[in-house]
Amino acid sequence: MSEFRFHVQASDGAARTGAIHTPRGEIRTPAFMPVGTAGTVKAMLPQSVRETGADIILGNTYHLMLRPGAERVARLGGLHKFMAWERPILTDSGGFQVMSLAKLRKLTDAGVTFQSHIDGATIELTPERSIEIQRLLDSDITMVLDECPAYGADKKAYDTSLDLTLAWAQRSKGAFSLRPGYALFGIVQGGVFEDLRQRSIAGLQAIGFDGYAVGGLAVGEGQEAMFATLDMTMPHVPDDKPHYLMGVGTPDDILGAVQRGIDMFDCVMPTRSGRTGKGFTRRGEINIRNARHALDPRPIDALCTCDACTGYSRAYLNHLFKADEMLGAMLLTRHNLTYYQDLMKDIRTAIAAGTLAAFAAEARAGWALGDIETPSGDWA
Amino acid sequence: MSEFRFHVQASDGAARTGAIHTPRGEIRTPAFMPVGTAGTVKAMLPQSVRETGADIILGNTYHLMLRPGAERVARLGGLHKFMAWERPILTDSGGFQVMSLAKLRKLTDAGVTFQSHIDGATIELTPERSIEIQRLLDSDITMVLDECPAYGADKKAYDTSLDLTLAWAQRSKGAFSLRPGYALFGIVQGGVFEDLRQRSIAGLQAIGFDGYAVGGLAVGEGQEAMFATLDMTMPHVPDDKPHYLMGVGTPDDILGAVQRGIDMFDCVMPTRSGRTGKGFTRRGEINIRNARHALDPRPIDALCTCDACTGYSRAYLNHLFKADEMLGAMLLTRHNLTYYQDLMKDIRTAIAAGTLAAFAAEARAGWALGDIETPSGDWA
Repeated sequence: MSEFRFHVQASDGAARTGAIHTPRGEIRTPAFMPVGTAGTVKAMLPQSVRETGADIILGNTYHLMLRPGAERVARLGGLHKFMAWERPILTDSGGFQVMSLAKLRKLTDAGVTFQSHIDGATIELTPERSIEIQRLLDSDITMVLDECPAYGADKKAYDTSLDLTLAWAQRSKGAFSLRPGYALFGIVQGGVFEDLRQRSIAGLQAIGFDGYAVGGLAVGEGQEAMFATLDMTMPHVPDDKPHYLMGVGTPDDILGAVQRGIDMFDCVMPTRSGRTGKGFTRRGEINIRNARHALDPRPIDALCTCDACTGYSRAYLNHLFKADEMLGAMLLTRHNLTYYQDLMKDIRTAIAAGTLAAFAAEARAGWALGDIETPSGDWA
Repeated sequence: MSEFRFHVQASDGAARTGAIHTPRGEIRTPAFMPVGTAGTVKAMLPQSVRETGADIILGNTYHLMLRPGAERVARLGGLHKFMAWERPILTDSGGFQVMSLAKLRKLTDAGVTFQSHIDGATIELTPERSIEIQRLLDSDITMVLDECPAYGADKKAYDTSLDLTLAWAQRSKGAFSLRPGYALFGIVQGGVFEDLRQRSIAGLQAIGFDGYAVGGLAVGEGQEAMFATLDMTMPHVPDDKPHYLMGVGTPDDILGAVQRGIDMFDCVMPTRSGRTGKGFTRRGEINIRNARHALDPRPIDALCTCDACTGYSRAYLNHLFKADEMLGAMLLTRHNLTYYQDLMKDIRTAIAAGTLAAFAAEARAGWALGDIETPSGDWA
């Protein structure tokens, strides 16, 4: 079995393009990972996820540990076989969802105890158990369990939390069984405070990880603060390892983060939006439920080559959403994921060509234009 | 443009196999038509519907006239283009859904006035308007507007209703614009009464149609009464035209109806069941939500070659349904439609070989066996 290996092929400013090699396939970077929360990228067949251009997907430890359960997935051959996705899978540690979804949370140095949001069962998640669950799922990239203060906490809270997060990172490393081709990523915390971010990075580096994620962002601080934090953080993260910005974001967020040295992203935005009628286009976002689309024979995005754009009109999608037809979510999710993967591909091409700044300016100008106009007259 | 044409290639007892030729493609008979109520076969991409083996789908006039509206569909290029299904479409007249779904129905000789179940608008459906809507949708096979008494009405009510239905059939024929390749089917009514069914057939034959449907069955009378009605009805229906049994049914219903001379079927059962967790197998029906499937690594039906059966376990489908994941409905619908189309294919093959009775006995014996057993021990 081959090793887990990352190499940078080209860089353009702080941005890099390259690939992560794993036994289950190559991950072209910068990469966007569609979110497959409960063992499925919602509304998508796995082969359709691959057709959009995805090299890797993300699975949620919190959801899978509660249902169907990590031991059950292991017994059925692991998450890849269970959900028929043969390529790499990254799993989060479960910590973030415990904080955002579970009830009656109790945090101690040992770990966190909580009540399942599904059946109310009391469950303990420790760094060791999180690593074990991710091994049972057979995750290719395992994330350490971390702790992230609620947005708006004061610096002292972030400082104390960082001690716990670093201790948990050490315990996660200790619990992780080294296997060729499998990777463990550390998570940089420290809020928007430069000294804390630097202390976090130094601590993680001393432990040693196969990749470094930036956590605690996209939690309400806004794009400006997020970019400022990346500006103060990324120069200190080891260059020879993949950099992963967790839970980000809009196309514009991704572009800005790539320009600051990020290699990997995950976000529910393209899939969740696909189920609620929001579509991403080269002219910004649209709400397909809007009456202006009801007679529009044009595709969502004329430059997109996905099945939804080559086969169906905005009018049809508008009808499907109004009639609550599942096919609406299926088609718009497919489009949105294709849009995101096309963006990543264009970003990789631009970095390789040394033209990322020009590409970014052009993409942003397109988004700023707003949606294509509806011809005057009797549409809608 | 070629003509609409039906030919029987082989028969076996009262059962026939052959094909309906239309400019949009051939319909192999006996045929099962998946139901695409609102311009989509629920939870299915149109190419996936075709992959299951469907030659034709059914669209519901009632739903499409209310949303998005027949004129709107026409303006967008017709129903085939709207929903990206290039093969034949049969549309019903809307009458049945007015009776089952609409509020404040008022029936007169002219037609039926009702309130939309979507927005409460008052709408009139006449034989002429139903034919016009189906022309606007560009339906390949148009159905006449008929009237069907509520199940359990007395013979006098069926007799009076039949007068109206025959008058509407005449008006429907007058309103239908003859176009090469397009067909108009009459609907035989008359409840479970032999003399009324015969009067209905004679009346329709005098008007002249491209195919004859049997209506007013599968409305609560039970399989025995349905088969008895077919036994007294089918010998009188013209042999050289397609015979369509509306809204039927279970695999066993279909098999029995084919043995009585039916060539075409439609039913929501495979698609609706696919969304509620019911799966059809060669060993009868299963409920995939049942705990016995939670650790079962086997496919729904080991003899099925659909994507759902070749790629996923019962355990995974059980998980998807428990987690309310859309992919569960997508996969099980695909399986159920494949199961129905495989059944039709096997039926056609058996008729051509003159072995329908043996095939029917074998299929029924399989259904009667019940689901494959769960190995003893620690599953579930």
